[in-house]
Amino acid sequence: MNQVAILGVGQAPVREHWDISIRDLAIQAGRKAMQDAGVAHVDAIYVGNMTSGRLGQQRQLGALIADFLGQWGAEAVKMEAACGSAASAMRQGILAVASGEMEAVLVIGVEKLTESPGRQTTAALATAADADYELVQGVSFVGLNALVMRRYMHEYGYERHDFAPFALNAHANGAKNPNALFRKAINQQIYDEGRIVADPISLFDASPIGDGAAALLLVPTQKAPTAIRVVGSAASTDTLAIHDREDPLWLKAAERSAKTAYRQAGIDAEDVDLFELHDAFSIMAALSLEACGFAERGEGVRLAHNGDILPEGRIPICTMGGLKARGHPVGATGLYQLVEATLQLRGDAGKAQIDGARIALTQNIGGSGATIVAHVLERPLP
Amino acid sequence: MNQVAILGVGQAPVREHWDISIRDLAIQAGRKAMQDAGVAHVDAIYVGNMTSGRLGQQRQLGALIADFLGQWGAEAVKMEAACGSAASAMRQGILAVASGEMEAVLVIGVEKLTESPGRQTTAALATAADADYELVQGVSFVGLNALVMRRYMHEYGYERHDFAPFALNAHANGAKNPNALFRKAINQQIYDEGRIVADPISLFDASPIGDGAAALLLVPTQKAPTAIRVVGSAASTDTLAIHDREDPLWLKAAERSAKTAYRQAGIDAEDVDLFELHDAFSIMAALSLEACGFAERGEGVRLAHNGDILPEGRIPICTMGGLKARGHPVGATGLYQLVEATLQLRGDAGKAQIDGARIALTQNIGGSGATIVAHVLERPLP
Repeated sequence: MNQVAILGVGQAPVREHWDISIRDLAIQAGRKAMQDAGVAHVDAIYVGNMTSGRLGQQRQLGALIADFLGQWGAEAVKMEAACGSAASAMRQGILAVASGEMEAVLVIGVEKLTESPGRQTTAALATAADADYELVQGVSFVGLNALVMRRYMHEYGYERHDFAPFALNAHANGAKNPNALFRKAINQQIYDEGRIVADPISLFDASPIGDGAAALLLVPTQKAPTAIRVVGSAASTDTLAIHDREDPLWLKAAERSAKTAYRQAGIDAEDVDLFELHDAFSIMAALSLEACGFAERGEGVRLAHNGDILPEGRIPICTMGGLKARGHPVGATGLYQLVEATLQLRGDAGKAQIDGARIALTQNIGGSGATIVAHVLERPLP
Repeated sequence: MNQVAILGVGQAPVREHWDISIRDLAIQAGRKAMQDAGVAHVDAIYVGNMTSGRLGQQRQLGALIADFLGQWGAEAVKMEAACGSAASAMRQGILAVASGEMEAVLVIGVEKLTESPGRQTTAALATAADADYELVQGVSFVGLNALVMRRYMHEYGYERHDFAPFALNAHANGAKNPNALFRKAINQQIYDEGRIVADPISLFDASPIGDGAAALLLVPTQKAPTAIRVVGSAASTDTLAIHDREDPLWLKAAERSAKTAYRQAGIDAEDVDLFELHDAFSIMAALSLEACGFAERGEGVRLAHNGDILPEGRIPICTMGGLKARGHPVGATGLYQLVEATLQLRGDAGKAQIDGARIALTQNIGGSGATIVAHVLERPLP
């Protein structure tokens, strides 16, 4: 089984990209990753995307992107696992290189959401949940997360106010990332005055949608011994509907995928220098910290309060803004996280740089924890 | 790199399954494949599907199916390459087993199309084409294939009538397959009187949509030395829009994927005992026979006329009915083909059995030849 390295990364800024098509957006990121790697030809292109068939009338993004990247003949296919689509594409890229069949694989996550009427986008995003047993109740995806957050507050005695540190950290970090959608820090007062979207979730507990694309170029490690390495890669699933879980406050798939990735990497949670987690909602950030071994059950919010999630803290999270401030172009998000983690480990994260970062954990979630993909990246010792 | 074997297969009959949900349909096929293999736990589930997010309001089919198959925790994701989705899922299953990371992988193709109003289904299927450069002209997916068929007739001097043998063979074979949607032979007169859908394509040159699911259980060959083997597996792409191709009558991606699969298998076209090709339209059957080395350019239709594609012919095609008579539940079709080829090589094809079949080629197409996936299966010598 080949080991896998990240030879190139590329991203488009997360914005409202009304002026370019989904193919142009994808190609912007893909071309940058290929240029960064110095690679002109790839064997395969795996694309992460959630909504293009419904919102853009365009399926078969694999062939589309291969075509417009000039990679005619390359194998190409799209992966979909709702908001976990992009890291799922990464998983397949890794398996393809690991199998020995592929020498250079491009993974691209791309999503265009902002051009469609809001109602259509909300309906498209709701398809991440269980259509027959959740959506049929009339609940939206934000509504589902609001129920989880309310339960968490009830079980562990928190107030809405206590979740503020997640938003403050994300927005402060986003201000240091030119590719982020929101590049402005906020304070506690702004958080407190946030308009409620689905009680208790306010605007500042929910990540914004956006248009974006991010890409990585993968090769066998022996071809790129100094490149950042993928030392752990695992995906796991949980019940699609939240009400089917024994404990709606425990992300089983996060625990399983993180544990597997740690074992592959030969590390423990305490070895991780930064954690790009899936803060689609602040409640998911709290639950992820707990399931991945950084906080005890019910203590995720406290960890944030203690400052442990800040850039200078014990386990910096969302170092380039996270979903909350970088933005959440759903089917691209998992690869933004991996690009950002790679930049951190290379020392190329600019103002957002975490000093001396050598091991990064990324975690991409589809639905309310139904699909969770974890990756551990490592900078090789010189 | 591990070699891969097919330990189990399962399928639901292609029908209008209005009485069951997409999850029940998928599980029917998946459970049969697991029972056939005698396997109770799988490491991963790769799902092929095209339209569930749009027509069924349900994405994240990977987690959904893992959940309802009782495979909690298994890695699971959906692949989409339009009508080539199912064989793309097979490709990923093969890479996963080949990498050495997985011991048992379930691949499932599933699609529900008939419950939606026809106009919605037509619009959903059209997303296989290029939205910006083809669909914008108002052309449907059938319309695109009609243009190709017209050009073929013009270049090589055929009449519509000459394409009849493809439909006659498919329907005769479908009559021998209890899982086929159409189980009744037709004659030349019926073909000739077929209602025109998009001139020159009549009802009998176009495959019908349907609801269905098919599944295969993959393991390393060393764990199942007597099982049918995957000895060739390759995918290739071409331009998404037909008008971008140098020669719209040559399926470059079919040629490339078939050649790669032959090379992996150490065979030539003449070694193939049966060919499950992607006869979404009879013109695609002709082009596939040419691109995969069974007929010279422009001779695909003549091959059919000579009876070479019949069960007793030189290269039997669509032996269980093909897309034309078994039906074309788009994102499931590629796995129906692989299930049928496996049954043929096992000698389990019932009345449709091709005597002594040992090597089978399958070919699944996304769009008008933009994504093409080829597999070569072989029955091991005793």
